[in-house]
Amino acid sequence: MTTQTETFPPVRNDARTAPPPLPAGAPTPDDVKAARKRIEGAAVLTPLLSSPFLDEMVGGRLLVKAEPLQRTGSFKFRGAYNKISQIPERDRARGVVAFSSGNHAQGVAHAAQISGIKATIVMPADAPAMKLANTRAYGAEVVTYDRYSEDREQVAAGVLERTGGTLVKPFDDPDIIAGQGTIGYEIAEQCAALGVVPDQIIVCCGGGGLIAGCSTAVSDALPGVPVYSAEPAGFDDTARSLVAGARLDNDPANRSVCDALLAERPGLLTFAVNSRLLSGGTVVSDREAFIAMRHAFERLKLVVEPGGAVALASALFARVPTAGRTTVVVASGGNVDGQMFGRALAAV
Amino acid sequence: MTTQTETFPPVRNDARTAPPPLPAGAPTPDDVKAARKRIEGAAVLTPLLSSPFLDEMVGGRLLVKAEPLQRTGSFKFRGAYNKISQIPERDRARGVVAFSSGNHAQGVAHAAQISGIKATIVMPADAPAMKLANTRAYGAEVVTYDRYSEDREQVAAGVLERTGGTLVKPFDDPDIIAGQGTIGYEIAEQCAALGVVPDQIIVCCGGGGLIAGCSTAVSDALPGVPVYSAEPAGFDDTARSLVAGARLDNDPANRSVCDALLAERPGLLTFAVNSRLLSGGTVVSDREAFIAMRHAFERLKLVVEPGGAVALASALFARVPTAGRTTVVVASGGNVDGQMFGRALAAV
Repeated sequence: MTTQTETFPPVRNDARTAPPPLPAGAPTPDDVKAARKRIEGAAVLTPLLSSPFLDEMVGGRLLVKAEPLQRTGSFKFRGAYNKISQIPERDRARGVVAFSSGNHAQGVAHAAQISGIKATIVMPADAPAMKLANTRAYGAEVVTYDRYSEDREQVAAGVLERTGGTLVKPFDDPDIIAGQGTIGYEIAEQCAALGVVPDQIIVCCGGGGLIAGCSTAVSDALPGVPVYSAEPAGFDDTARSLVAGARLDNDPANRSVCDALLAERPGLLTFAVNSRLLSGGTVVSDREAFIAMRHAFERLKLVVEPGGAVALASALFARVPTAGRTTVVVASGGNVDGQMFGRALAAV
Repeated sequence: MTTQTETFPPVRNDARTAPPPLPAGAPTPDDVKAARKRIEGAAVLTPLLSSPFLDEMVGGRLLVKAEPLQRTGSFKFRGAYNKISQIPERDRARGVVAFSSGNHAQGVAHAAQISGIKATIVMPADAPAMKLANTRAYGAEVVTYDRYSEDREQVAAGVLERTGGTLVKPFDDPDIIAGQGTIGYEIAEQCAALGVVPDQIIVCCGGGGLIAGCSTAVSDALPGVPVYSAEPAGFDDTARSLVAGARLDNDPANRSVCDALLAERPGLLTFAVNSRLLSGGTVVSDREAFIAMRHAFERLKLVVEPGGAVALASALFARVPTAGRTTVVVASGGNVDGQMFGRALAAV
């Protein structure tokens, strides 16, 4: 099920000493820096959390970038705000349109709300109830579709035609990637404030926008530090694509509790970036994501959703060697229902 | 059941324009500032969290000081570290001794551990399993006692006699109060960075050390801003004592899920401070504390324990008027078992 339109060089696993050239259309480190200026004051500078208990588990030092504490409960607000704040005055009255499994929906809805712009969000009807309710509470109009029988891009295209609004893509957009990448610079600065240089960084990966942005920032601020993706089993499209050197699809029959990471395949632009900048892809089970959520609850007092916990799970379950190393993981979101959270707390 | 040894002037409810004189032995604002210098780098500068959903609930602005993100999962590390870092070299080899329902135990154990000092902690046998296990994991020796039949101070006295160590009291000590009070200065600075002046501050209250320290800092950094205590029903000793102008006991038959706040009565020194600086005492039910925990989970992605949630509950359930006001609440800890947390998530 390979999409044959694009191929990329195979991922390199050796630590790099200089950033490789970025593909055309990709955001540069300067674009990410510009995004930082735009989101400053609007977005939360989320803390880098740690626990001696987690350090002991990994046999090294573990630092957790706490994006559940971001506005709207996930990193998605960063990219959405970076995009929406650049919409020209003449286009603002026609609003914005987005399609999303939930976190991007909330990020766009809230970024539009505080920018005084109307948002229409296309969401799967089976998205977590909290994500649907919150998106509406942020003032957006929600249009639902069936995740397994309808194409969300087509539904969104219909809304765009009707409203003439601006599409805010979930990941395959340089402004979105640049916004998410602000996390990479924050990690670099927060590590420097702690007096540590990370040995490796693991980032949750759905469509790949967060990790494309982070790896762009890291290539500038922490050159040579390897960045690994973390994905749930059954949705390991980026890990397999990095090995294949081409974008591979996930089996549409696959299911995962990690609702935030259910991409069909890597984005065109995000994979062009990621295939050049990532050091490899890691994969964890739903059970491992649940256990990581439980440890975040017990040790960090942080609520993390299943998809937001896969990078932490990747470190805790040693998908990359952590002994004697400083590992930074991004906990990317915390929008989870109480029932699902209870399942995670009971996981062993 | 009044203890007749001390009486204090009744609490004043009008906003003050100048701090009243502090009692002898109480830490001054300068002592709290000195504590800040000592804990800097060791303690986490915890964030001030917010959510538009919580703002809507209170009809104003709500800012939550997130001490569950502090080292050891509660504010107790601050006071413990401030105290332990001042132990003279000649006394360090004999270690420290503390008695605690759990959070102070962990704070002392960890502060001693990173200072290279042995800690012996006297804890109730029915303390939450996680608090007992963590205290041991921080390298402390744990001595248990029966909360309802033994006097913890006597048990601790026995350990002190045996070891010759330094007692680290849970609240009735100027160095402990000054350490906890660092939160007050952080709140003032974080509010200033947001461009807001709080109209009122609500702080969880057990023995009263946290709120005594915070109100001392607030009297200096935010003079005139009222500070209210929050306590669980059945353990509202400070609220009743403020009205009576004298330290009153709780009924020993009372029970609450707020295990961190089960003081027998206000501390001698803490009440001397609190009776002069607080604007009043608020009381919430266990059910209201649970619901506040659920909202912290849903809206802030923060794990808060029952006793840590009473100040948030006090704001959410309008124990003081919040409409059109900026209210700061301290969420004081997050050390809660999964089972108890599940009860809170199910609370309505």
